[in-house]
Amino acid sequence: MSQISTKPASGMRDFLPREAALRKRVFALIEEVYQSYGFQPLETPTMENLSTLMGKYGEEGDQLLFKVMKRGNKLQKALKKDAPTEVDLADMGLRYDLTVPLARIVAQYQNELPRYFKRFQIAPVWRADRPQRGRFREFYQCDVDVIGSTSMTVEVEVASAICEVLERLEFKNFRIHLNHRLLLNAMMEAAGVAADLQNDALVAIDKLDKIGLDGVKKELAERGISEDSTATLLPLLGLAEEVEGNEALLTALADRVGELESGKKALSELGDLLRFAATTPAAPYLKIDPYLARGLSYYTGPIFEIRSDDFSGSLGGGGRYDGLIGMFTRQSLPACGFSLGLERVLMLLAERDALAEPAPDVDVLVTLWRDDFTPNSLRLAGELRAAGLRVDLYPDADKYGKQFKYADERNVPFVAILAENELEQGIVSIKDMKRGDQAEVPRTEVADWIKARQA
Amino acid sequence: MSQISTKPASGMRDFLPREAALRKRVFALIEEVYQSYGFQPLETPTMENLSTLMGKYGEEGDQLLFKVMKRGNKLQKALKKDAPTEVDLADMGLRYDLTVPLARIVAQYQNELPRYFKRFQIAPVWRADRPQRGRFREFYQCDVDVIGSTSMTVEVEVASAICEVLERLEFKNFRIHLNHRLLLNAMMEAAGVAADLQNDALVAIDKLDKIGLDGVKKELAERGISEDSTATLLPLLGLAEEVEGNEALLTALADRVGELESGKKALSELGDLLRFAATTPAAPYLKIDPYLARGLSYYTGPIFEIRSDDFSGSLGGGGRYDGLIGMFTRQSLPACGFSLGLERVLMLLAERDALAEPAPDVDVLVTLWRDDFTPNSLRLAGELRAAGLRVDLYPDADKYGKQFKYADERNVPFVAILAENELEQGIVSIKDMKRGDQAEVPRTEVADWIKARQA
Repeated sequence: MSQISTKPASGMRDFLPREAALRKRVFALIEEVYQSYGFQPLETPTMENLSTLMGKYGEEGDQLLFKVMKRGNKLQKALKKDAPTEVDLADMGLRYDLTVPLARIVAQYQNELPRYFKRFQIAPVWRADRPQRGRFREFYQCDVDVIGSTSMTVEVEVASAICEVLERLEFKNFRIHLNHRLLLNAMMEAAGVAADLQNDALVAIDKLDKIGLDGVKKELAERGISEDSTATLLPLLGLAEEVEGNEALLTALADRVGELESGKKALSELGDLLRFAATTPAAPYLKIDPYLARGLSYYTGPIFEIRSDDFSGSLGGGGRYDGLIGMFTRQSLPACGFSLGLERVLMLLAERDALAEPAPDVDVLVTLWRDDFTPNSLRLAGELRAAGLRVDLYPDADKYGKQFKYADERNVPFVAILAENELEQGIVSIKDMKRGDQAEVPRTEVADWIKARQA
Repeated sequence: MSQISTKPASGMRDFLPREAALRKRVFALIEEVYQSYGFQPLETPTMENLSTLMGKYGEEGDQLLFKVMKRGNKLQKALKKDAPTEVDLADMGLRYDLTVPLARIVAQYQNELPRYFKRFQIAPVWRADRPQRGRFREFYQCDVDVIGSTSMTVEVEVASAICEVLERLEFKNFRIHLNHRLLLNAMMEAAGVAADLQNDALVAIDKLDKIGLDGVKKELAERGISEDSTATLLPLLGLAEEVEGNEALLTALADRVGELESGKKALSELGDLLRFAATTPAAPYLKIDPYLARGLSYYTGPIFEIRSDDFSGSLGGGGRYDGLIGMFTRQSLPACGFSLGLERVLMLLAERDALAEPAPDVDVLVTLWRDDFTPNSLRLAGELRAAGLRVDLYPDADKYGKQFKYADERNVPFVAILAENELEQGIVSIKDMKRGDQAEVPRTEVADWIKARQA
């Protein structure tokens, strides 16, 4: 057998214990917050039938799907075709996002789901993008969605849960930029952008962060928006720079587009949303931003996106999309969701974590003095576990130096020593690895002693 | 677009909230126990390079690997070959177990891992088996392994952790059948089975549960084991039926194979193991069973398997395999591991759970009396969440009948009502959905009142 590379496959990552533990901690915290808002867990398979996935993410998305090859006779049969295509050769694909599977679930189990279905899912998705720094082919998404209500309470609860997650993760200086799909339409209508050009215009506007104002102007022109329209549109989009505060901004927008049907509806919903949010954890973070476009054309109502001065780009976003969830039933189902940029969040936390002292994942290492002391050490380990401590046991009778070195490698804060002296006296010697001191503690008090030092 | 099936792909499962929540609870409990034994989490990618996986699971395993198709030019190039094979067309495969990825990790990161690497991993694996009742193409495995020590403390800790997991999941009447690979070798040697036939004989012995004693006899004969050898071997394997208790059994075995080198080592290690285990949670469950073979030929030391009278088959098994982990480095690394039959465990728990009342995943539903009461209801929901309750909010102003019906669908035990009367008096009316009664509770005491009733 020739030497095989032991690196992970291209675009994939291994998570060794320290990083894996951080990920688990963050996932658990997010789940706890979402569950406190009444969201329920959902698990869908890694692989979906290719027919479920194809055509849902545009032409580029179809190409970026990882496709799983047919097997046995079916593959042989497909290979006998003249010019077999990917769809001939493959029958399944790896999950590309969490939204299409949700839509499938809603169609398949509609009679089993409650009237309002509030689900969260934290799960990996796969995309055959060219791997590059910070972009992976396997990455986690973290979605919450509420299906079944058109009420703005849904937007408020979703935004509030997100803010609570970020607060608990000790993010500061973030904002939730808030806009409304119909407000964008109204502004474009007011600027005389023809209906069939509005989606094109949105795509250009969405690039503001990347290409700047001049870039947007240029791209609008290229997409056939007249100079006059652009001259009216840009000051509307930029209103937030001139008018301070959400309420004043809504008033200013009402002056300009409040008479248009779409403008009226958008401003009324945004007004409700802000009023409802006033007593929730989302209140201090919401910021109306008429510029926010969020390219995806499936949004139908309020849209939001998390930004911060502490880093460029977004930490996630979402909004109302009343048409999408019914894709498999051709039913229109109101829905609002939010996708947290989980890998982004984890990266920022890992950077912060790297500066801090790592949290130990074991409380105490029980050493092994001599082979014939093995039952004693095992018994002590059992006692400490029963008292709620996380306990590692050094498996071999070895020089204490090696045992301490291992404790160091494992980042264990306390080491318990149980040799003849300790056994005779009914005590345990405990070395505090951080302080460097050693104490003799009565055997029955060891767990409490360690817990007291941890506190 | 033609009607697309919304069922999960063949052999895959959707887990709606109730089942997903059970799975999450069980995973969390297992993780907690394993962490209390000092095991560390590890996460490896879903997809591995095909070269990492091929040839590791035998010919049948190679066929059961789900293979991910190459993309773009690489696929086109492969298709131009005369008779392209699966390996020409695919570059990655889905994880088939958790052991080969662990071996890859150990090879890749050997300098970063502690001297003893104790890892657990609970993760899905994929096999292109023909789907049938209870057999799925995507299923979770739950592995713990300790790498780096030949000490029997490792076996004891692994078995002890498993017993604690099963106890915490309230399994009863289970046993850990225990044997030693070298003891099997010694018994075969004593019975005159030639060394090159011993693996064949093991495969036959391993089928005892499926084909019975007569079946084993027949298969041993078919595999070229002489009648004499079988006549000597079977009573040795069946000694546990004649000799009561582990110690007596070890003595009886020592009489018969204790002089053989392999028998001596096996009996000494099993003796240590039982002596070390005496004070641990594993003690009451360990049962020496000379018949236990566990077909996999890579075991080198003690082997174990969980069985119970409450169901047929095994709940998992493991053992020492000192050759396997070094497969990518051609280094021999001592290792001992255990794989819990997680899907089996979950199935049994779901059956038990189905008999019990489902645990609610929300503590209280806050109703919405009228549109203009939305901020009040949102504020109450926030107060209750801040007090540690899981709170769902009914999003639309609707007849109370519908709101109660939703509470019922969601299995919410308490419903909070906040209308004019309540708001004026500073109270909340709380309906206990199980008892059917309703109480007026001062606003500041609502959370405590609910918690008291929950207790």
